[in-house]
Formats: sequence, structure tokens, C-alpha cells
Amino acid sequence: MRPSGRELNEMRSVSIETGVTKHAEGSCMIKMGDTHVLCTATIEDRVPPFIKGSGLGWVTAEYGMLPRSTTSRMRREAAAGKQGGRTVEIQRLIGRSLRAGVDRVALGERQITVDCDVIQADGGTRCASITGGWVALRLAVNKLMKAGDVISDPLVSPVVAVSCGIYAGQPVLDLDYPEDSEAGVDGNFIMLGNKQMIEVQMSAEGSTYSRDQMNLLIDLAEKGVDELAVAQLAATA
Amino acid sequence: MRPSGRELNEMRSVSIETGVTKHAEGSCMIKMGDTHVLCTATIEDRVPPFIKGSGLGWVTAEYGMLPRSTTSRMRREAAAGKQGGRTVEIQRLIGRSLRAGVDRVALGERQITVDCDVIQADGGTRCASITGGWVALRLAVNKLMKAGDVISDPLVSPVVAVSCGIYAGQPVLDLDYPEDSEAGVDGNFIMLGNKQMIEVQMSAEGSTYSRDQMNLLIDLAEKGVDELAVAQLAATA
Amino acid sequence: MRPSGRELNEMRSVSIETGVTKHAEGSCMIKMGDTHVLCTATIEDRVPPFIKGSGLGWVTAEYGMLPRSTTSRMRREAAAGKQGGRTVEIQRLIGRSLRAGVDRVALGERQITVDCDVIQADGGTRCASITGGWVALRLAVNKLMKAGDVISDPLVSPVVAVSCGIYAGQPVLDLDYPEDSEAGVDGNFIMLGNKQMIEVQMSAEGSTYSRDQMNLLIDLAEKGVDELAVAQLAATA
Amino acid sequence: MRPSGRELNEMRSVSIETGVTKHAEGSCMIKMGDTHVLCTATIEDRVPPFIKGSGLGWVTAEYGMLPRSTTSRMRREAAAGKQGGRTVEIQRLIGRSLRAGVDRVALGERQITVDCDVIQADGGTRCASITGGWVALRLAVNKLMKAGDVISDPLVSPVVAVSCGIYAGQPVLDLDYPEDSEAGVDGNFIMLGNKQMIEVQMSAEGSTYSRDQMNLLIDLAEKGVDELAVAQLAATA
Amino acid sequence: MRPSGRELNEMRSVSIETGVTKHAEGSCMIKMGDTHVLCTATIEDRVPPFIKGSGLGWVTAEYGMLPRSTTSRMRREAAAGKQGGRTVEIQRLIGRSLRAGVDRVALGERQITVDCDVIQADGGTRCASITGGWVALRLAVNKLMKAGDVISDPLVSPVVAVSCGIYAGQPVLDLDYPEDSEAGVDGNFIMLGNKQMIEVQMSAEGSTYSRDQMNLLIDLAEKGVDELAVAQLAATA
Amino acid sequence: MRPSGRELNEMRSVSIETGVTKHAEGSCMIKMGDTHVLCTATIEDRVPPFIKGSGLGWVTAEYGMLPRSTTSRMRREAAAGKQGGRTVEIQRLIGRSLRAGVDRVALGERQITVDCDVIQADGGTRCASITGGWVALRLAVNKLMKAGDVISDPLVSPVVAVSCGIYAGQPVLDLDYPEDSEAGVDGNFIMLGNKQMIEVQMSAEGSTYSRDQMNLLIDLAEKGVDELAVAQLAATA
Repeated sequence: MRPSGRELNEMRSVSIETGVTKHAEGSCMIKMGDTHVLCTATIEDRVPPFIKGSGLGWVTAEYGMLPRSTTSRMRREAAAGKQGGRTVEIQRLIGRSLRAGVDRVALGERQITVDCDVIQADGGTRCASITGGWVALRLAVNKLMKAGDVISDPLVSPVVAVSCGIYAGQPVLDLDYPEDSEAGVDGNFIMLGNKQMIEVQMSAEGSTYSRDQMNLLIDLAEKGVDELAVAQLAATA
Repeated sequence: MRPSGRELNEMRSVSIETGVTKHAEGSCMIKMGDTHVLCTATIEDRVPPFIKGSGLGWVTAEYGMLPRSTTSRMRREAAAGKQGGRTVEIQRLIGRSLRAGVDRVALGERQITVDCDVIQADGGTRCASITGGWVALRLAVNKLMKAGDVISDPLVSPVVAVSCGIYAGQPVLDLDYPEDSEAGVDGNFIMLGNKQMIEVQMSAEGSTYSRDQMNLLIDLAEKGVDELAVAQLAATA
Repeated sequence: MRPSGRELNEMRSVSIETGVTKHAEGSCMIKMGDTHVLCTATIEDRVPPFIKGSGLGWVTAEYGMLPRSTTSRMRREAAAGKQGGRTVEIQRLIGRSLRAGVDRVALGERQITVDCDVIQADGGTRCASITGGWVALRLAVNKLMKAGDVISDPLVSPVVAVSCGIYAGQPVLDLDYPEDSEAGVDGNFIMLGNKQMIEVQMSAEGSTYSRDQMNLLIDLAEKGVDELAVAQLAATA
Repeated sequence: MRPSGRELNEMRSVSIETGVTKHAEGSCMIKMGDTHVLCTATIEDRVPPFIKGSGLGWVTAEYGMLPRSTTSRMRREAAAGKQGGRTVEIQRLIGRSLRAGVDRVALGERQITVDCDVIQADGGTRCASITGGWVALRLAVNKLMKAGDVISDPLVSPVVAVSCGIYAGQPVLDLDYPEDSEAGVDGNFIMLGNKQMIEVQMSAEGSTYSRDQMNLLIDLAEKGVDELAVAQLAATA
Repeated sequence: MRPSGRELNEMRSVSIETGVTKHAEGSCMIKMGDTHVLCTATIEDRVPPFIKGSGLGWVTAEYGMLPRSTTSRMRREAAAGKQGGRTVEIQRLIGRSLRAGVDRVALGERQITVDCDVIQADGGTRCASITGGWVALRLAVNKLMKAGDVISDPLVSPVVAVSCGIYAGQPVLDLDYPEDSEAGVDGNFIMLGNKQMIEVQMSAEGSTYSRDQMNLLIDLAEKGVDELAVAQLAATA
Repeated sequence: MRPSGRELNEMRSVSIETGVTKHAEGSCMIKMGDTHVLCTATIEDRVPPFIKGSGLGWVTAEYGMLPRSTTSRMRREAAAGKQGGRTVEIQRLIGRSLRAGVDRVALGERQITVDCDVIQADGGTRCASITGGWVALRLAVNKLMKAGDVISDPLVSPVVAVSCGIYAGQPVLDLDYPEDSEAGVDGNFIMLGNKQMIEVQMSAEGSTYSRDQMNLLIDLAEKGVDELAVAQLAATA
């Protein structure tokens, strides 16, 4: 029934390749099927003004899509002169999600910026960005710990994201673009590896969903989170 | 236990005054306690390019805060030269939510823009904007129906929004600013009057929540939606 | 002869309600007929760089119109990405006018920002903003004096503004929108309560006026200033 | 008493050199003492959307200052990414003033853009721009009439501008920069050659003026207008 | 003598992998040592307004750097709100260079946009963008020819770019970042495969060079062009 | 053969008038035939952040065109809200070129900004800007030396720029606009007075050139540089 032939509760194949760029303190290329996102983590000694002197660290994120990551070419945001509403919404979500898995006292007064750049898009880029972004963050923090700059591990648990939705009337896990563009309901679920929730976003446009349907989607999401957390840990072992 | 002395499941007092501005096709001032939002609906014959000629209508929204609607003065976004990420995120949510309650075929090829301007803020402005925005939309559509420009009612059900969160470890309904600024988890629940869900957003920052806690918040939200739908219908009767 | 049926030298009914928002140090809603402007005054300890350390205070203003304050919806300036020329011109005028009634030594090194936001427009919004802005300023200064932060009253005299113009060949006082949009000559007169002049602007577009006509308009303006100063003092008594 | 040694009612020496750039349909360099403004007029067949098809013409203006036209270097507005409030205010004034001297039916459906660029500034650049801008406009219209594109002369009368102010307690004509920066009251007077008024702007900052003082300034302005109109006519004879 | 241990006239190892993204009509990843650029070509039926209806085609280019393609993180241009001067200069150069190798009549009235996004930077990104951009362009044109949309091959010759400079007093070929940042003279040479020149740019900052030195650099560039043209043809065979 | 009737190796008549604006520390109007550029040099005590405390000076440049310096009116960049790509490219070139002739140690920790504003354009404005910009810089530096603020002359040699190109198949010196708009190859040559090269830019669009043709153009450029250096020295003697 699904365009890809997958089972309703079947994720796309996932691969996470680390160390893909020589300059970043942490990096990976995450591939969820045909969705490919390059994630890099940059450590800087400065923090935003509002926490200067607090001893707390900060994790933030930026998101972008290459102009031809999509089926038809998108306008380059740098040329348009601003980041669109969707971009800003996504990068705020990535930053907020990653911070939920960070002990900012343990991190110490430094900032880590996670850049998530979509090389090829086929649905689910924001979830891939969070899942891959955590891997880049993990690698950067490992470097800090190895150097003795950070003593106690500030990453309390993996941060994982997966999308679920109602496609052709059925709850499905990990929507690809053909599903995403047709889905009546589209949800993003961000959790720690232990399934404690960080953020749930479930939107319907021109449609609605019942509380029972919501629960079915969360069941699917929990399955997806388990599988992705395994992939994250394998990549950073 | 709550700063306002309210019960955990008690909403702030709600008032919705309609017809507050003479130019708009529909308008109201919604007050949720000390949060006051002016909502106006504007009917235009043009639609966005992507639906031109489709026969479908469009509902969109814009959101703003007066500079001194807040405890300390905010910079005016027009002076800053752009709408901030939070503003864009909120106005996209308002538009998406209202559209979920609209039969766009019945509306016909016209656009209704709902402007939500916060006159005084005390938490929950996005929810008040949706709840009040629907009232302005209802009044504008009534005008179209009275004039015979629209025959079948395009508003299938009221659209209602309410916030819930975990404050001091307890699930509470309708957070005001002192609660909102301290809450570990903050959720916005947008539903039709019959409790079918349009959008759920539950965010934790520097914290997480369990699935059980999530369910308690939804229970509270359903209670709030019932009460607000009554107020909407009374205001537009 | 006037669309509203008023006498040539008759103002619209004026009301000034104070204390309309709980956060601002001073606030009022001024209504000149169907023109409604919300004015708030914000006190801050910082001053602009060019007077830092001088011991002098500063008063500045910002102006905005809600998108549907007008007959047809205006584009939101924050969405357009900048304040239009008319907005900038008006807010510079408001700030300059209010400063003319302030003893900046007595105010001391602090800044008061007066925000004038048009809720509903029917002509004469800049004059209403100045007249109402002074009331908000007066209330904020009262708070400073009551707290002992300011000893000697820095407000030397009320600042009042009124428009006059030549409509259908006749000099008229306090133009409303139907008059304003047809007037051959349109003037704004800002004075102290004692009729000393702060600023006079008389513009003709596609037309001109004689020195005699100018004098008739000033006569009308002086009458209007007297009436408005009474309303200001009543509101702040 | 004046820094320049001029009499109270004495203008700076005026020169208007025409034909200073080979591309523009009309051009002049106007020098009011050390204030030098290059004015060019460009004829285009298109008009703004709001008068398309009306048969009416349009005259508009833009204003700029070279970065080092001033005592200390100003930031280039193109580099700053926008025109400042002062620039916008001035170019709106120039356009409005020139249009008051134009019979837009006689001009026919075409647009003339007058660019006023300050090469060297010593006070009074907006007035010099209007007076010189009219000369450029006159020359461009002459070209249209000579070519038979316009039959009846659309320029009904010269448009002339001069500044007056109260300097060291005395009313003075045609303020230069040392006077302008110290003046308690500063006025710009735009008139037709026959002294019918187009626009009067009299501002005080941190000061006020009486109606009698206002009348003395208008007397001076009328004298200045007479002299400038002679110079305009000589230059375009 | 060179930091990399290369001979003065030795290029970095070059690899060009094609077909690296599924959406673009042509794509490659070009690696010149540690400089990695993703090049995609997008075919669109529209052309810029200035050649509409002319029957001529258009080739244009855009350039970007991922924020962490560099040693320390660069600000994202989309977040900064504009493309910097260097970016604009480079993308104009890429477009101009590629067009010099295109028969625009044979291409027909369509546009090909070449996006060059730097994944990892180590000097010479503009040259790599041109050389790789031509490969993406070649592949996109092949698709047009295979589909019969273009009959006669519009690509007259490969377009190749290489940098040379004077490093530590010696002329060297294909500067990497450590050389580039120290070089007294830095040149970019864009040629057809037959060594006809398209563009030469040789800049010194705080230094100069003689005509003899210039000739030595061109000798090196011609050697580099020969080698790169072989790699281009191998990749697109 | 040339539209102007000049010999292939003949420059336009050159004039350089100095001291044309009273505020700038150095200024000139350079005229290369009908191309007129006003160049001013501004001395400031501050330097850019990246050299603060280094003891080194800085020279930078900005470039602009008056809207009607061209055959048809160009949009004012300040009104467009940004400097175009061509403007940025040119002003970076001017700054880089002038710096190549400056001993930044001898200049001391101060900045000189050279503004080049095109009053009338007829081709070759960037070269005229460099040649004239050096004259303004020379005059400003003379002032510093005369005042004893700079002891050893920081200007090591004149900086001169000239354009050459291939027009109608022939190498020509100093292209005017009719030639420039038709030329198959267009080069800018910036040299010191002794013909040491600072920057060479030779571009072909939709065409190419051989190494022999390149050498012929350089021969012409050297002749032009000799003549312009004489004019510079005469103007600043």
C-alpha cells in the first residue's frame, strides 16, 4: 500500500557515516533512504550574551537545504535575502530538541553549533537532522572529554526524532516525500533513547484526527526511536 | 499552588467582545485573564497564486505584539526590519489551525486574512489568537452568507486552542506568564469543538515528559476546549 | 456641508481613557471620533549614545497602524520588512514635538519611549498620537516624580496637535478621513497649551494656498488646541 | 552677527549652471553658497500603477548625499541597505512640491523623475534641491514641447524653496550649516513664483515660537522666493 | 618547499564523481585534494526577461559555502540576510566562464542553473566550481540531447579553471589553503580545453608582479588545464 | 574604425581637477572623455577591528553611480536596499588596488576611505575611479605629512588603471561605452607607475582570446599607464 512497498511500521534503511568533513569537531552524513543530511558540530568558547558568566553551556542549530536537494530547484535562501519561515521553525526545533539531552552545567560555558544541511531531500529532513545532529554533537563532546576540557559527560541520553503520519487512512512510520505530500496528518516525535518525550508535533491541514489515532502514531514513533537509537550508538561507539 | 490561586484545571476568566473595529468584516477583542488580543478578519476577492482558478478559498493569519504589550518593552518588528522566528512560527500555526475548520470549496475563491494583534500579554497569546481569530472569521463568514456570496456554511466546527503544561511538577490548564516562564513542559492543543485534534505541540526545554504525563495534559486540554467553545458560540450567536 | 455635519470650526468628540494597559508606565486610549490610538510610555534607564554622560534625558516615539485599522487592509510593515516613509516621517514628528515640551535637564539621564499604535483610523492619526502621547508621557513622568526619581517637573506645558485644512474651498477644523482624502490643503499644527508653536506643516498637493488662507487655518488650530489641552488636563488630573 | 557676515535678510550667492550632464533630459548644478546639488530630470513613458490609463502624468523625486558631501563622512545609504528617515522625508517633500506646479493633464501619461544629489553640503540642501530640481524639470519639459510630445505647457509657475529660521534670537534668511545647527527654529517655505504657498514647515526642537515670529519668517521667505525665481528664469531662458 | 610537499608544477589529486544526487539533471562531486564541491545542474524552460523570445539559451551559476566547510565556522549567508561580496563575485565568474563555452543558439531558449556548494574548503574553491560545474552542465546537456530536445551539441569545448600564484617567491600551480593565505600574488585562469582564454584574474595585495612572472604563471596554468580537461572528459565519457 | 575616431592606441583626453570639494581631506574630479568620476579621500583615526592595535593603516574604497549618470536611468542602490554585485566587485577592486601602492606601516594606524562616485558614465568607470582615487589619496596623505602626523611617505608609487579590449577584432586602448558594449574581450589593467602589475582582469563573454592577443593588450595597457601616471603627477605636483 505504501508507495515504497514498506510495511506500515517499517522505517527506511538508515546509515550514519561519521567523520565526513575534516574541519568540524564532529560530523556525519545521515541517510534515511533517499534523504541525506550532512551534520557538523562546531565548538566555540563564546556563549550567547544571555548566559555569559553563568557557567552554563549552550547548544544551538542551523538548518539549510541545498537549492537542488529537492525535485525542482528551490531558491537559495542566501540569494532571497532571508531564511524562510519553515527554515527558522525547523532550526529552532533542532536546537531545542538537542538541548533537552544536554546537561548544560557539565558542558561548561561553551557553545556547540550543529549545522544540518540537506544534500538530498525525500521527506523527513527535520527528523534526520535531529538524529544525525545528535551524532555530530556526541562526537564533538567526545573530543572535549578526551582533551580533558569536559570531565562529566554532558550528554545524558541520545536524542532521536522520527516522523509518523496518517497516509491513505493508515498510520505509517517514517514518511517519505510521496507519503508526506499526501498525508492528512503529519507528526514529528522527538524523544530520548528511553522514550521520555522532548517534543511532539502533530499537525493536520484541512483534516483532523482523534485521540485514538494519536495514540497509534505514538506507538509507531516509539518503535522508530528504538531502532534509530541503536544506529546512533553504533555510529558513535 | 498556582501563582494566580487557580485550581489546577481552572481556566482564566474569558471574555470575547465582538464588533470592536468598524472597518473589519469581522472583529473581536478576546481576553483570557490579562492576555488581550485584538482579532480582525478581512475578506478579499484575490487568492494566493497557487490556488488561482481552483475555485478553492484560502484563510491565512498574521500575528503581532504591540511593543509595550509585554512587561518590558520589546523592539517593534517593523523597526527591526523583519518578523522574528517566533512570530512567523505563530502566525503559520494560526493560519493552519483555522484552515482545518474550513470547507474551502464552500468558501469559494476568496481569501480571509485574520490579524491577531496582542494588546496586552500575560501568557497564552497564540492560543487566544486562534480562539479569538475563529470568532472574527465566523463573523466575516456570516457577512458573506447574509449577502448571499456564500451559500453553504464553510465553517464546519469552531476551532479552539488552549495551552497546558507541567508547572512545579503538576499538570495545569491555561498557563499565565508567571507559570509559562517557569514551566518544564509547555503544550498547545488546537481542536475542533468536538475534540477532534488539529494540532498538538508539546515541548520540553532542558527537561522531558512521559507518555502518562502527556495524557494528563490532553485531559486538561479537552476540558478547556469545551469551555472555550461555549464562549465562542455565545459571542457569535 | 461637512460630511459629518459638523460646523466648520467644530472638533470631533474627544475622549481620553488612561491606564488602559497594565505593563506600561503611562498609557491612554485617545479617541478623536472614529480615530482611536493606543499610546504607551516606557521609561528606560539607558539613553541614546549621543547624549550618554550628558545628564540630559531623551524622549522618542514610534508609530504604527494595525493592518486593519484602515478601510481596506494595509500590508503589515513588519511583514514588508521595513517601516514606510510615511511611518518614519510621523514618528519623527511625534518625538520632536513631545521633546519641545520637555525640560531634558529636569528629566535626568533616562529615556522615555512613546508608542502610538493606531487601532482604528479615520483621519488625523498623527495629531491624535501627539495629543494622546503627551498624556501617556505625563502619566509616566508622574510615576517618576512620585517615586522621587525626578524632583522638578520636566513637562513644561502640554503638547497638543490638531489638523486643519481647506475642504471644498472652506477652512475646516479637525479633518476626518472623508475630508482629508479630498482636501486641497492639509495642515498639522503642534503647539504648547499656551499656543506657542512647536511645528507647523501645511501642504498642498496639486494646489496652493494664500497667506490669508494660512492665517484662517491657524485661527482654527488655536481654537482646537484650547479644547484639546482641557481634555488632556482632565485626563491626567 | 551671522557667521558669514551676511545681513539678516540676505541670501547666499546663487548660481545655476544648466546642461551639466549629457545623458539627462534636463540637468543643472545649483549652488547656494557652499551647498552644491546636482539635479537631473529623466523622462520615462511609464507611470506608476495607480494612474495607469488615467491620461495623467507624474513627477517624482529622489534625494541622496554623497558620503563626503558633509564635514565628516556619512555612511553611504546603499551600503547601509536602506534610505534613512531624513532622506525619505526630503524626497517625498521634493516630489510633492514639484507636482504642485505641474498641470498633470497637460503633461500627459508619462513620468519625470528628478534626482537631487548633494555634492557638497552647507545647510539648506532640501531647498536647493527643490529650486534646482524645478530647473531640471523645466528643461526636460522644454525638450518634450520642442519635440511636439507635449503641446500645452504643463509647468504653471516656477516652484521655489527657501529656508528661514531664528538664529541667535533673530529671524534670518537662507541658513547655512553653522546657523542651521544652532537655530532654535528652522523653517522651509515652498512657494510658486507668485508667492502662493505649496508647503510650509516650521519646526522647533527644544524651543517654541510665537505667531508673530512666524510672520516675520514668512516675510523673509517671500523676499527669498522672489530672488530665486529670477535666478531660475534666467537659467532656463 | 610547498607545505604539501608537491612539486612547483604539480596539481593536487583530482577526482570527479558523477550522478551524486538523484534530483538534478546533472551532478558531480569534484575533489581537488581536500577541496570538495558539489555541483548540480538544473534545466528550466524559462529564461531571464532580457532574452525572452530571442531563441537564445542562458547558463547561470550560484555559489555557496556550507558554514563549517572552513577551518573555523563561517556565518551562514542565509542567516546574515545576504550573499557577501566574495560570493557574488565568484558566482558571476562561474556563470560568465561557463557561458563562454556554450553555443546559446544550439542550446535553445532554456536556462541551466549550475549550483556549486562547497562541502569542504582547502583553497581553490572557485576553480573547482568551474571545472566541476562544467561536468554537471555536460551531463545535463547530454540528457537534453538524448531526449531530442537539443539537436546540435551546444557545448563547444570543456571549460576548465585552475589557480596559480607566487608563493614564497616561487610560481606554483594549484594553490591549497596554506599557500593561498600566504601568497603574494594569486591568479585564476579559466580556459577552454584548447587553451583559448576565457578569463584571467591576477591579483596582488600589498605586493606586485612583473610581466615575466605573469608569463610563468600562465605556463603553469596551461599545464593544469590540460590535466583537468582529461579528468572532465573521463568523468563524462 | 573606432566610433570616436581615435587611433587604436589612443587614450581619451584626460583631465584631473583637484580640490573640488571643501570637506574632504583629498578630492578630485577625473574626466576620461565623457566619463566623469568624483573621488574623495577621508581620513579617520579608527581602523577595522582585524588590525586594531597592529600599528598598520588601512585604505578602503566605496563606489557608486548617480542614477542618471547613465544613458537610461538606473535604479538608485540606496532605494533598492542594497549594493548590486557589480558595485561590490568594483569597490573591492579599487580598495585592493590602492592598498597595493601603500606602505601600511608608514601610514600608521589610521584608515583612509576613498569614495568614487560616477557623475557621468561613458565606459571605464572603474579604471577612472582607481586612477582618480589615487590622486585623492595622494592629496590626503600630503595633508597628513604636512601636519607631521605621518613622517615617511606611505605612497610608494602611483597606482594607475586602464582598460583595453578587443573591439571589432582589433586590440584597442581605453574603451568608451560604445566600444565596451560591443567588445568581445574586455580587460582592466592596474599597475604601479613603473609598470609592475597589481591586478589584471581579462574577461571574454561568449568568446575567447589567445595568449598572443593577451600580450597585445598588455602592450597597449603599458602605454596607457605611462600617460596616466604623468597626468596624476601633474595634478598632485
